[in-house]
Amino acid sequence: MTRVGSLAAELRERGVDLLLIAAPFDVRYMTDFTGSNGLAVLAAQESGPHRFLTDFRYDTQSAEQVPDVFTREIVAVDLLEAAVRALEPRSEEAGVGRLGFDDSIVTVKQHARLLELLPAGWELIECGGAVAGLREVKDDSELARIRAAAELADVALREVLEQGLVGRTEREVAIELELRMRRLGAEGPSFPSIVAAGPHSALPHAEPRAVEIPKDTLLTIDWGALHDGYCSDCTRTFATGSLTEDERDIYELVRRAQEEALAAVRPGPSGREIDAVARGIIEQAGHGEHFGHGLGHGVGLEVHEAPRLSRTAPQKALCAGNVVTVEPGVYLPGRFGVRIEDLAIVREDGGESLSGLSKQLTEIQ
Amino acid sequence: MTRVGSLAAELRERGVDLLLIAAPFDVRYMTDFTGSNGLAVLAAQESGPHRFLTDFRYDTQSAEQVPDVFTREIVAVDLLEAAVRALEPRSEEAGVGRLGFDDSIVTVKQHARLLELLPAGWELIECGGAVAGLREVKDDSELARIRAAAELADVALREVLEQGLVGRTEREVAIELELRMRRLGAEGPSFPSIVAAGPHSALPHAEPRAVEIPKDTLLTIDWGALHDGYCSDCTRTFATGSLTEDERDIYELVRRAQEEALAAVRPGPSGREIDAVARGIIEQAGHGEHFGHGLGHGVGLEVHEAPRLSRTAPQKALCAGNVVTVEPGVYLPGRFGVRIEDLAIVREDGGESLSGLSKQLTEIQ
Repeated sequence: MTRVGSLAAELRERGVDLLLIAAPFDVRYMTDFTGSNGLAVLAAQESGPHRFLTDFRYDTQSAEQVPDVFTREIVAVDLLEAAVRALEPRSEEAGVGRLGFDDSIVTVKQHARLLELLPAGWELIECGGAVAGLREVKDDSELARIRAAAELADVALREVLEQGLVGRTEREVAIELELRMRRLGAEGPSFPSIVAAGPHSALPHAEPRAVEIPKDTLLTIDWGALHDGYCSDCTRTFATGSLTEDERDIYELVRRAQEEALAAVRPGPSGREIDAVARGIIEQAGHGEHFGHGLGHGVGLEVHEAPRLSRTAPQKALCAGNVVTVEPGVYLPGRFGVRIEDLAIVREDGGESLSGLSKQLTEIQ
Repeated sequence: MTRVGSLAAELRERGVDLLLIAAPFDVRYMTDFTGSNGLAVLAAQESGPHRFLTDFRYDTQSAEQVPDVFTREIVAVDLLEAAVRALEPRSEEAGVGRLGFDDSIVTVKQHARLLELLPAGWELIECGGAVAGLREVKDDSELARIRAAAELADVALREVLEQGLVGRTEREVAIELELRMRRLGAEGPSFPSIVAAGPHSALPHAEPRAVEIPKDTLLTIDWGALHDGYCSDCTRTFATGSLTEDERDIYELVRRAQEEALAAVRPGPSGREIDAVARGIIEQAGHGEHFGHGLGHGVGLEVHEAPRLSRTAPQKALCAGNVVTVEPGVYLPGRFGVRIEDLAIVREDGGESLSGLSKQLTEIQ
């Protein structure tokens, strides 16, 4: 079924006549529009009428991108206001019109404005996550694009590693990595790259510094490509020479936790249960308190989207076609940290990793 | 006065006891925290108590960044929930506590959750734009950082132009520009760079293509640096050889509109009035319908922030210390477009441009 058809069915299920779609990635998902200011109003019938609104700057671009099933409107004012002002008042015979909006996107202020503008015979209905729900399950064209982004990111990192790490600054490595992803065709990195050596690797979200990477330490690289609209996300931790026994032990602990959690990924268990697989292994080794973040998150148009894999994630089964990260870490403040992350498709028989680089401890000087 | 002191005064004026600050750039402005997940609760007294909340991943980083006036809390659940759960119920004698929130940031869903969690004796008060209002007027340290970002962006473009334009693809030029900004110290581009030649320049928000830049055409470059947390934004349109008379005429029209609007920038007039200066000139030349976007926008931590300069901007006077773009354009669909943009500080005697590149029509092959 087309995305428009799937959403129309969802809207009928929820009992709404129309859905306002305001979140940029939701708009892109439904309309293929890649600009920064677009809004869609979808009807609960696949045949429409469906509307797409943007401003003057995107007239030509939206004409090329947005399929004919949408009526295009170029407006000079706020898109949300224009969308609602244009609704026909409903006669009493037609019954009350139900206009859905995503309450996890629309702000309190926008909501108040919508209520002011709503024509007679319409009411606003909370309709959170209708598009996000569709986006959680990737279709084949999306899986192909995510796979391509992950492959591109791997190629870029391999090229960077060939030049060696020791003596270059974390920042130089990050810039080089981003440049290579761009030259290979990426729109950019999918998030600010992390390159963190030694004690800095104990910060899960470290910012690359103008500090030289030393020999004989651990180095964490967490990077991803944005390619053809889709994100990748991967982490590897390398040795830049010989390591202490503690460092090697923690590496192997994280690797085991990562691999067992990845193998447990399949349709059925919830993100909370998969998180518990990795967390149990790390807790049993006495490092539970050093793994303070969730195990992973969905990846698609956004680098962080549903479903989540964490202690507090909803008790909802993963589905075939979800794409998630599996990224346990152990962080010893002031000493070092290890994180290993694969991007994986949820398949019937486990997580299919899209990350091609080895997870064996690898020495790169 | 400190930012915390200014905000406390604003909160007393608005009659609220505490303000929830959830927007990432507002949090950064008030606390210096640069991570992706932080929340602040400011009190209406400069002396506090003020709170800062983040998660495990940012424990070490926030300890380094966030000043001591904030009590730091590391929480494992949703930050907004944690912030509200920790409020002490108010006794009847103490009177109702007034908890402000930014209704232009907080979603309908978050608001409903806050209402559920709010302890006895507290009420939620709409308090939109309290921090954004402070952010509109830049202090000297902010002006210095924006100036540095603009200078860095200029240096990067000069280096790129020295290598010539004709025969390189739009995409290559964009990548080269971003790489040079990064190497010069930028965190990245402040927005996706626009490099648009020939008829493509008639799209105000064109995406760079893998298409060679031809000789004898117009080429628009719209780019900016993100440096030390602050953004720059500038546009120049170049000739890649000889131009038609139409192209030269439109260039001069846009240049005149830009320079007259820039000269009109000062404390007193509204963004709507400054927009009208440029728009009047372009309309008089018969091209009003080809200038379909606003004249400009504020720039700071975000590349698009208040105040706006447009036909629909609020009737509010510009202030000394605002930083705005002045960027009229004329776009002839299918033929060509010209946009010229300076980033400018609002000074008593006019707009002080931070953009160092000439606005004379410049030929670069």
